Amino acid sequence: MMNIIGARLSPETRASNETRDIYLPNQTEQVSQIAIDIGGSLTKVVYYTSTPGIQGGKLHFTRFETDCLDNGIELVVRLLQESQKSTRPNLTPHVVATGGGAHMYYEKLKRAFPGIPIRKEDEMECLIIGLNFFIQQIPREVFSYSEATGMCFEETPKDLYPYMLVNIGSGVSILKVTGPGDYVRISGTSLGGGTLWGLLSLLTDAKSFDEMLEMSQHGDNRNVDLLVGDIYGSDYSKLGLKSSKIASSFGKVFRKGEKIEQKSFKSEDISRSLLYMISNNIGQIAYLNAQQHGLKRIYFGGGFIRGHPVTMNTLSYAINFWSQGNIRALFLRHEGYLGAAGAVRMTFHYPQ
Amino acid sequence: MMNIIGARLSPETRASNETRDIYLPNQTEQVSQIAIDIGGSLTKVVYYTSTPGIQGGKLHFTRFETDCLDNGIELVVRLLQESQKSTRPNLTPHVVATGGGAHMYYEKLKRAFPGIPIRKEDEMECLIIGLNFFIQQIPREVFSYSEATGMCFEETPKDLYPYMLVNIGSGVSILKVTGPGDYVRISGTSLGGGTLWGLLSLLTDAKSFDEMLEMSQHGDNRNVDLLVGDIYGSDYSKLGLKSSKIASSFGKVFRKGEKIEQKSFKSEDISRSLLYMISNNIGQIAYLNAQQHGLKRIYFGGGFIRGHPVTMNTLSYAINFWSQGNIRALFLRHEGYLGAAGAVRMTFHYPQ
Repeated sequence: MMNIIGARLSPETRASNETRDIYLPNQTEQVSQIAIDIGGSLTKVVYYTSTPGIQGGKLHFTRFETDCLDNGIELVVRLLQESQKSTRPNLTPHVVATGGGAHMYYEKLKRAFPGIPIRKEDEMECLIIGLNFFIQQIPREVFSYSEATGMCFEETPKDLYPYMLVNIGSGVSILKVTGPGDYVRISGTSLGGGTLWGLLSLLTDAKSFDEMLEMSQHGDNRNVDLLVGDIYGSDYSKLGLKSSKIASSFGKVFRKGEKIEQKSFKSEDISRSLLYMISNNIGQIAYLNAQQHGLKRIYFGGGFIRGHPVTMNTLSYAINFWSQGNIRALFLRHEGYLGAAGAVRMTFHYPQ
Repeated sequence: MMNIIGARLSPETRASNETRDIYLPNQTEQVSQIAIDIGGSLTKVVYYTSTPGIQGGKLHFTRFETDCLDNGIELVVRLLQESQKSTRPNLTPHVVATGGGAHMYYEKLKRAFPGIPIRKEDEMECLIIGLNFFIQQIPREVFSYSEATGMCFEETPKDLYPYMLVNIGSGVSILKVTGPGDYVRISGTSLGGGTLWGLLSLLTDAKSFDEMLEMSQHGDNRNVDLLVGDIYGSDYSKLGLKSSKIASSFGKVFRKGEKIEQKSFKSEDISRSLLYMISNNIGQIAYLNAQQHGLKRIYFGGGFIRGHPVTMNTLSYAINFWSQGNIRALFLRHEGYLGAAGAVRMTFHYPQ
């Protein structure tokens, strides 16, 4: 049983692009607990450690490519062993697995953790439980974002339900949440993180997610996107379309007859255009579903956002544009770890 | 004044991938009329010819890349001259221009047609007027499509309004039409034809739209798309997600560390995946808007579809899937010429 009363972010001690630990000051009982969320692209791990003599303990957050599952599992095994050193040796650790891979790789996990019970938990259920944990228990976790204002942290709302979760992993799942255990997957799209990384790995030399995002910071999408102004020579005022609006993503690329050399387009510009394309599209589909179901608050989770300012700004802008300011886009520091955090819930002790 | 009573498709005489002429049996008055619809990628031309001694005349449909506007204009000038030979020499021809380019290239058009009046018409208005002409006047023009049933031609509905037009050009415009002149652009997306052609020209060796579509016929998207079954190892029954459903478009492409060689993926497979991605997305956004506005019939127009079976099947499937069969996707033989046909409307004589 883990006690999360007073749970809070640890002071920032590590590189800022890493996910902050969460300090559990009132956790006294020794536990050995690891949760693993195996997604289509990324596997996320949340584990608990304590240091003898120091009160409480910490939840740690780490991830690796699902393609490197074997090495990842070795890592988890090491974590388990270290975790056990600092706890009672006779304490049996728990491994909780969720995400699609929890089913597909179950046998592999059993072989990797001989003699250790592995509990499978449903992906969507874990997402919601993890999200509610972060929203309700962790101060300065949830924020809205815009380029102009930066991060604005959000108090836990009195009336949390109903809300929408848009979980952006390799693909996108859109869930409507009406109560602690009440949710339904109302929609989704196959244009997600996997689409951005897949196309960028074909179109640029970037070797990692973060390299791709870094490149997009320096790009100008107007070199590849066809804008309203490129077609009309001005705003299309009658329809309220500004000349700066993207009419066609990648609409400037195709020229009949000429074989296009990729090098004739800069990787930075392509990255920016693709990032806008995917983020705008997710924002539009999220808005249309929120509209259909009368939801006013949209939480964005999943491994796609990675705290990337351009991504968050684009999602916020799309929601604000389509909803005319009536629907709010909200983000989380631990956006990628909702499922893994939810998977350790059984050991959470909620304050009454 | 053109008389469209009894207007019908000409017998198929030309290559089947060309757009069928429309025969106007009751058009007796000689006219010289050309309409030009200048879009972001394609320019569409509709013009009328008659043969002395033969009753009536024909509307012809042709198009060229907007990048080749100068050559295109030469073509139009030749058409004008031929058209005039067969008509009274003193007859002043009309040129009607629409589409975004009508504004941007207006001066160019005036120089190309010295002494000939060029009328500009609003793009969206022409789209609707052209669509209504095809729906209401041309038998065997409108059809629904599925791989299983093929083309099923549709009678002109008694209660035509309200309906939705999804016009897929370089980008996508979604219009709600509530009466002959009553329409509003309710939505759109930048993921349209220009996006498909642009990305395919970067990712494959295809040199033309039709070559790209041809390639996609022979491709298997499962080599690049991540399916539900690739993540879960089976259906995700609890959520009703079949293992064959695309979870992430291009989700199989990115592998950390390895630099992906494009040649490690077949152009055919990439084309199929991109075509599915764009068509599914348009179908989903069209459905969500139709739902929001209570529209039951969706007409798909624009230069993107080109009578391509996989494209029409994907759009139909998406609409049917999301609406659970409550909303119908409808297509037109002259899908790409709605705006150009609408631009010649001033000379149409509607039967009372």
